[in-house]
Amino acid sequence: MKKIQFADQKQEFNKRPSKIGRRSLSRSISQSSTDSYSSAASYTDSSDDETSPRDKQQKNSKGNGDFCIKNIKQADFGRREIEIAEQEMPALMALRKRAQGEKPLAGAKVVGCTHITAQTAVLMETLSALGAQCRWAACNIYSTQNEVAAALAEGGFSVFAWKGESEDDFWWCIDRCVNVEGWQPNMILDDGGDLTHWIYKKYPNMFKKIKGIVEESVTGVHRLYQLSKAGKLCVPAMNVNDSVTKQKFDNLYCCRESILDGLKRTTDVMFGGKQVVVCGYGEVGKGCCAALKAMGSIVYVTEIDPICALQACMDGFRLVKLNEVIRQVDIVITCTGNKNVVVREYLDRMKNGCIVCNMGHSNTEIDVASLRTPELTWERVRSQVDHVIWPDGKRIVLLAEGRLLNLSCSTVPTFVLSITATTQALALIELYNAPEGRYKQDVYLLPKKMGKRWRGGKSRCDSMSMWPAYICLHSTHISQS
Amino acid sequence: MKKIQFADQKQEFNKRPSKIGRRSLSRSISQSSTDSYSSAASYTDSSDDETSPRDKQQKNSKGNGDFCIKNIKQADFGRREIEIAEQEMPALMALRKRAQGEKPLAGAKVVGCTHITAQTAVLMETLSALGAQCRWAACNIYSTQNEVAAALAEGGFSVFAWKGESEDDFWWCIDRCVNVEGWQPNMILDDGGDLTHWIYKKYPNMFKKIKGIVEESVTGVHRLYQLSKAGKLCVPAMNVNDSVTKQKFDNLYCCRESILDGLKRTTDVMFGGKQVVVCGYGEVGKGCCAALKAMGSIVYVTEIDPICALQACMDGFRLVKLNEVIRQVDIVITCTGNKNVVVREYLDRMKNGCIVCNMGHSNTEIDVASLRTPELTWERVRSQVDHVIWPDGKRIVLLAEGRLLNLSCSTVPTFVLSITATTQALALIELYNAPEGRYKQDVYLLPKKMGKRWRGGKSRCDSMSMWPAYICLHSTHISQS
Amino acid sequence: MKKIQFADQKQEFNKRPSKIGRRSLSRSISQSSTDSYSSAASYTDSSDDETSPRDKQQKNSKGNGDFCIKNIKQADFGRREIEIAEQEMPALMALRKRAQGEKPLAGAKVVGCTHITAQTAVLMETLSALGAQCRWAACNIYSTQNEVAAALAEGGFSVFAWKGESEDDFWWCIDRCVNVEGWQPNMILDDGGDLTHWIYKKYPNMFKKIKGIVEESVTGVHRLYQLSKAGKLCVPAMNVNDSVTKQKFDNLYCCRESILDGLKRTTDVMFGGKQVVVCGYGEVGKGCCAALKAMGSIVYVTEIDPICALQACMDGFRLVKLNEVIRQVDIVITCTGNKNVVVREYLDRMKNGCIVCNMGHSNTEIDVASLRTPELTWERVRSQVDHVIWPDGKRIVLLAEGRLLNLSCSTVPTFVLSITATTQALALIELYNAPEGRYKQDVYLLPKKMGKRWRGGKSRCDSMSMWPAYICLHSTHISQS
Amino acid sequence: MKKIQFADQKQEFNKRPSKIGRRSLSRSISQSSTDSYSSAASYTDSSDDETSPRDKQQKNSKGNGDFCIKNIKQADFGRREIEIAEQEMPALMALRKRAQGEKPLAGAKVVGCTHITAQTAVLMETLSALGAQCRWAACNIYSTQNEVAAALAEGGFSVFAWKGESEDDFWWCIDRCVNVEGWQPNMILDDGGDLTHWIYKKYPNMFKKIKGIVEESVTGVHRLYQLSKAGKLCVPAMNVNDSVTKQKFDNLYCCRESILDGLKRTTDVMFGGKQVVVCGYGEVGKGCCAALKAMGSIVYVTEIDPICALQACMDGFRLVKLNEVIRQVDIVITCTGNKNVVVREYLDRMKNGCIVCNMGHSNTEIDVASLRTPELTWERVRSQVDHVIWPDGKRIVLLAEGRLLNLSCSTVPTFVLSITATTQALALIELYNAPEGRYKQDVYLLPKKMGKRWRGGKSRCDSMSMWPAYICLHSTHISQS
Repeated sequence: MKKIQFADQKQEFNKRPSKIGRRSLSRSISQSSTDSYSSAASYTDSSDDETSPRDKQQKNSKGNGDFCIKNIKQADFGRREIEIAEQEMPALMALRKRAQGEKPLAGAKVVGCTHITAQTAVLMETLSALGAQCRWAACNIYSTQNEVAAALAEGGFSVFAWKGESEDDFWWCIDRCVNVEGWQPNMILDDGGDLTHWIYKKYPNMFKKIKGIVEESVTGVHRLYQLSKAGKLCVPAMNVNDSVTKQKFDNLYCCRESILDGLKRTTDVMFGGKQVVVCGYGEVGKGCCAALKAMGSIVYVTEIDPICALQACMDGFRLVKLNEVIRQVDIVITCTGNKNVVVREYLDRMKNGCIVCNMGHSNTEIDVASLRTPELTWERVRSQVDHVIWPDGKRIVLLAEGRLLNLSCSTVPTFVLSITATTQALALIELYNAPEGRYKQDVYLLPKKMGKRWRGGKSRCDSMSMWPAYICLHSTHISQS
Repeated sequence: MKKIQFADQKQEFNKRPSKIGRRSLSRSISQSSTDSYSSAASYTDSSDDETSPRDKQQKNSKGNGDFCIKNIKQADFGRREIEIAEQEMPALMALRKRAQGEKPLAGAKVVGCTHITAQTAVLMETLSALGAQCRWAACNIYSTQNEVAAALAEGGFSVFAWKGESEDDFWWCIDRCVNVEGWQPNMILDDGGDLTHWIYKKYPNMFKKIKGIVEESVTGVHRLYQLSKAGKLCVPAMNVNDSVTKQKFDNLYCCRESILDGLKRTTDVMFGGKQVVVCGYGEVGKGCCAALKAMGSIVYVTEIDPICALQACMDGFRLVKLNEVIRQVDIVITCTGNKNVVVREYLDRMKNGCIVCNMGHSNTEIDVASLRTPELTWERVRSQVDHVIWPDGKRIVLLAEGRLLNLSCSTVPTFVLSITATTQALALIELYNAPEGRYKQDVYLLPKKMGKRWRGGKSRCDSMSMWPAYICLHSTHISQS
Repeated sequence: MKKIQFADQKQEFNKRPSKIGRRSLSRSISQSSTDSYSSAASYTDSSDDETSPRDKQQKNSKGNGDFCIKNIKQADFGRREIEIAEQEMPALMALRKRAQGEKPLAGAKVVGCTHITAQTAVLMETLSALGAQCRWAACNIYSTQNEVAAALAEGGFSVFAWKGESEDDFWWCIDRCVNVEGWQPNMILDDGGDLTHWIYKKYPNMFKKIKGIVEESVTGVHRLYQLSKAGKLCVPAMNVNDSVTKQKFDNLYCCRESILDGLKRTTDVMFGGKQVVVCGYGEVGKGCCAALKAMGSIVYVTEIDPICALQACMDGFRLVKLNEVIRQVDIVITCTGNKNVVVREYLDRMKNGCIVCNMGHSNTEIDVASLRTPELTWERVRSQVDHVIWPDGKRIVLLAEGRLLNLSCSTVPTFVLSITATTQALALIELYNAPEGRYKQDVYLLPKKMGKRWRGGKSRCDSMSMWPAYICLHSTHISQS
Repeated sequence: MKKIQFADQKQEFNKRPSKIGRRSLSRSISQSSTDSYSSAASYTDSSDDETSPRDKQQKNSKGNGDFCIKNIKQADFGRREIEIAEQEMPALMALRKRAQGEKPLAGAKVVGCTHITAQTAVLMETLSALGAQCRWAACNIYSTQNEVAAALAEGGFSVFAWKGESEDDFWWCIDRCVNVEGWQPNMILDDGGDLTHWIYKKYPNMFKKIKGIVEESVTGVHRLYQLSKAGKLCVPAMNVNDSVTKQKFDNLYCCRESILDGLKRTTDVMFGGKQVVVCGYGEVGKGCCAALKAMGSIVYVTEIDPICALQACMDGFRLVKLNEVIRQVDIVITCTGNKNVVVREYLDRMKNGCIVCNMGHSNTEIDVASLRTPELTWERVRSQVDHVIWPDGKRIVLLAEGRLLNLSCSTVPTFVLSITATTQALALIELYNAPEGRYKQDVYLLPKKMGKRWRGGKSRCDSMSMWPAYICLHSTHISQS
């Protein structure tokens, strides 16, 4: 029944381009990460029995059975994954250590709905160390790392998630998180807005006890702003997505590395001496250009925004129209955020062997549809790599069918995820501890100053939105050298 | 009488730290530019008679005498200076060409008060080409390039300015610009707010005809916001100082070059292999670090803002406390905007030969006062270079007595000034052409969209604040290649 | 019988460290390239029958059966591999086009023994286009790409090679190349010296007709110098290994990219902000340092050679003793060429999570043996990635068990192989066309000037050793833009 | 009489292009260094009396009068110059400290003929500290820093040199160095070969006691090789000019900085966004390209040597023919070592305002003569800066009339001179201590291993040619951090 009730909505949700943004940093759905730790674990799943987790009765070693996951026996393997992740999440570990005495989340009952990965586990265990109780579901039906879920369940967390949930399972899991006897959440941590949505639909009264919502995704934030505009937002919400640190890491710093990684893993191309055109000089474009320039590529930039164009120019990149260089370049990279930047006309004029890929925010920058015509032959030469062959034998090398290269063909470093996770933790702390009336029923960015309760005035850095960075730096650099 | 009336005010004005900001890009007051074109001209002044311009009667070759300058005979030399400047002001020249047919400033009567330099002349002649009438005074008693003023006068501009004005001269010149029979300004272009202030005090009724004020400096903008707050601003004003292009050019791009230039001209130091600590990683610090890193220096950064610290870190600079590296570095550069960053304690611990300089926004980052003690010997070894010698013979090399290195020991490229001048021109066009009511009696940043009148809908780039950049790029790069 | 005769020798050969050098650029043995084109092909092998190629009778589509390979039916797949490789071998393709009219190898009978890969196929087909007849065996029992061998056989080449040859097969294949009725080689192209060795042992009289040997590997060149010293070299030989272009590409340019690629594929580490120590600042170290610096790492260098140390210093890297930074670095990279650079003492002091890898010329730079003690636990977390765990829980991440990271965990771009292949082709042309007496029975580097016969005086660039570079540039850059 | 005897020779000498090389690192003749320490001193000369030093009788404070200089009273000022220089000559100071106990030059009687600058003084005082006696003359009639000569004389050195010697004075000074009663040199340190030449001509018997010659300049080394070829070299000689460290510093590292410095001081041009073509990608071109790229210029390279071209390409610079880009570039820099690289045809096609300068090894790369035609107007706008104006008003900006920019318009860092001076000192030590017969009557590069006597086996770095680098690093970096 639930299934029918929410199916449309879910489908509609899947169509939104922002869905891509939401999923963006999930390592587990990266198709290229087939040799990652997680997939190693996932592989063992295939030898698992096919019984639905909902039909199994499992308990952890302490006899606790308040969870629903694939296989509790994978807990050890999951624990190692978590330990590995901890090493690249210094900010979160520092926060755990620093705030552990004060327990700023004592009494907090957090219900969460995010990707269930090793990185999330580090976040959850941090929240727990700071005093919170947690119940958790997955925000994506494919992205759960089963072994991590097992380790969390073994550690006493009420987790309801597995890889390959059905639509019905998805909502069932969320419901199991919130619909509990004798336990009512007072904080929401959401990624995509499904959990928030569910509570609105099914348990609106719960909001009376809820102190706030922390939301990470573009989509979820968008929903919250709509609710707020419509006067329907009934608790304060924190928009984590638009924090400076997150933006810089997700775009500039992350793409500077993933453009190289994505191209190498798919094509083994040598960068030195190659001519490359990068379409768009926003943060993503800046990262791509800097990396390729450093590797010895000759980089051209197209840009219609004059401020960005000026920056490209002052950074030493020659500004061109795509038109001018399309015949001579070896690699074409789109990161404009616009549609149909690379159209069939340009594809027709590229030279033999030209590599075409997209680093932008959608899969419409390259007009891939225009290549699906009878006179062109498609050849899949590797996972994520297609050769499109013209009648005269010319081939272009299309990566990830025009979808995001860095998500499809690269991995997201744990360090990047660490920034977001730390920001989420701080947002929970802030909302939970804020004095009555500090936050209205509106959407907020992280405030410049943290509340006093947990901060204790000890630090000279009292800008909350800066904490993740500070903590991160502190632990990796200042204190260790 | 006027003299007495305004002296206090002027003095007070001179004390403000923001005065430095206001003067910041004036090439003519740079003490290091003693071999610049302008100074060549200025040199000939010394052989001039000492009669005050106010006491001389001069006419240009067409018989026009509505100006007051040092010596009309220098016009030819000034003309060459202007022609040279034109070559590095592509944006302004492009605007001149592009808008000349439409004459978007037809009917405009602009009274201006800025540094009178070759770059300003290019601006004034552009305004004239676009249809405006101009009367002009200097915003600084020392910064006028006499030969440029002569060329302007010869070209028919009513200029009232010379190098070495007295306080009284200063206000007299401004008054001569506005207090004319049969001519009343309808636009103000100000740099520092003195002109605006004068009209407020003396001719408040003029504001009835004035369509707006364009103000460039930090100080002047500050005054405008105060007027606005007090409800006393009676026309719209444009804040040019805070446009993105100006900020990027004045700080990041300009400092990236001037840190090297300033250090070389004063010390001839070799950058390769030197250990340098840069205090502060804002735009100025980013520019300094990038330049020195590229020259082979080993660069450390101190930073208390965690976001900036994180950026330094991700850009590959080791974050330190000044404390940790002060004994080993060869060069110390401050650009924090704070006071007493380099205090005596640090100066005491520097190694022999360490170079200390300031690129920040004031002259208080290095505690120079603390070095004026009996046990230390000061030796002036070059213009702008002092050796401070400890009893044990250790010397540190202090540049510009802790004032801004890039203003004292380097020059500001015309190209940078070009960006500001173009923005000023666009701001005048916008305010002059804006439909009634578009702008209230408030301070505005440049709007995202230009008014239609002069734009004519021809360009696909209709973001006004982006025009300077666009025009600049267009002419230097896109169209020429 | 042959088997017994040569077994010792082969084994001894395998023990030499230079064997690693010899194999160095073979993509097919890279364990990380499991998703490469070649491995895709190799995968289909597993479904092949297990009959030895020696026991099969195969013919190509023209009825020719003078070859011995795994499966002629894979020819189409192999052809595609070759076509893909052609796109990244512009120098060779340009040489093919340029010299095709002159046929500088008309009459040449080349017997070759190299890795049989798509890149080699492009070389062989180029030699053929220039007029040569070729017979070919593999220089390594594992490195043959069966589908490429099939495409060559289908194209009429006499190839004797398959993946997974036995020792006996290895020598049998070489023998089949040289021991033919009615065909006697007059040129040798060798990689490792096994083919040369075989002819010396079995058919010494053949040298009467042989005009020269072209040898690529460190090992083979070493053998030739020994022969020469002993007065036993009976034909001229060209040492391709030590040409400038090969050295620059194999080391500086290749490592600049493969250090990033190798680290990312194995650890997904984020480079930005990481502290890295690179041991050794030769060409390999220079490449590693430049790449990591560009990605935002903070890089330290250890170096005992003062000239290299000075270069590191002038390039902006802080020189340290390993000792000073070992506790704080996140990544340790060796490329000194020495033994025991990273010893147990250092490993004991590294911080938790430190990544340790080797880019140098042997597998002895990291004292891996010292880690095989009872108190340490080894955990294989991925292919090529081991966690070594101390009793207190500290883990270090050891890559490729201390073997060469770029060979084990990265791929070699075709473009790099292209440089070597072009040099080999030019060396063959030079030796084959040199006038009687130009080359004695000695080992030569490529001469500065090419013989006239094939050059035809058309080019203004007559330095032969520079041809590969010139041709390469010509086709990728000058002519296409 | 002497005057007549040697005049021709001297004149001829002046015509040689290598003269430029010889003078290359003399700061005192840099026309741009008019505000340097030295010139400050020189300025005071103008107020000096005009009596020739040869006609004055001066004594130092200890009563010693065995010298001939401008004015002994300037000694204090000269001492400060020397102390300042010491700070940027760490290698030499380290050598002084290290070898002082052993006195490896005890008994050495060194006659020297070099530029008399602060840097030379540091060298001379080092030689003295190591046990040598020194007598010194100037190798150039203009380059002597009088105040430094005074400080040396005051310190007891027999110096014969002043700024503005006549031809006759020049040889008289040299003669005074060698022609002394009761003192005969056993070592020669020469820069240009004039001293060596003089002894050959006048006192050939002196060579019986001379253990060796150390020569720095291209010219002098050339003369020595000619002598050697002719069988006339009668003592061993060390070629310091071709040591690796000297080459790297004089070219790559020095030009990387001086290209920026030279352009800024002359034109104040902003580098960011400028299009630049660099002709030639040798060490000088590499330095120029790296620096300009880092400042945000868009850099093109022309190169005919394929190896260098390939390096340019792999370093990310677009290879072009000058032809292709001459209309669009803002700056043209030559560093090919060839003649007529930039000919009139190209100059005719440059755009208005294009800056043209030369960093190569002669003044013939730009065909300046072709610009001296009636239709073109020359305008000297600053020292070293000419505007050449075409009939249509187009101007090009020609720097230093096509002579070396870095010598004419920049300064040479003391640090660079330090490398050479240290090498000279080591060469003296080696030749003086070498066992009988180690060096024949030939020209040598610095040997890989130092003789044992002074080395004492204490250092682990026993490669002599590497010492300067090692010592330099040691003192600036390793030991201070």
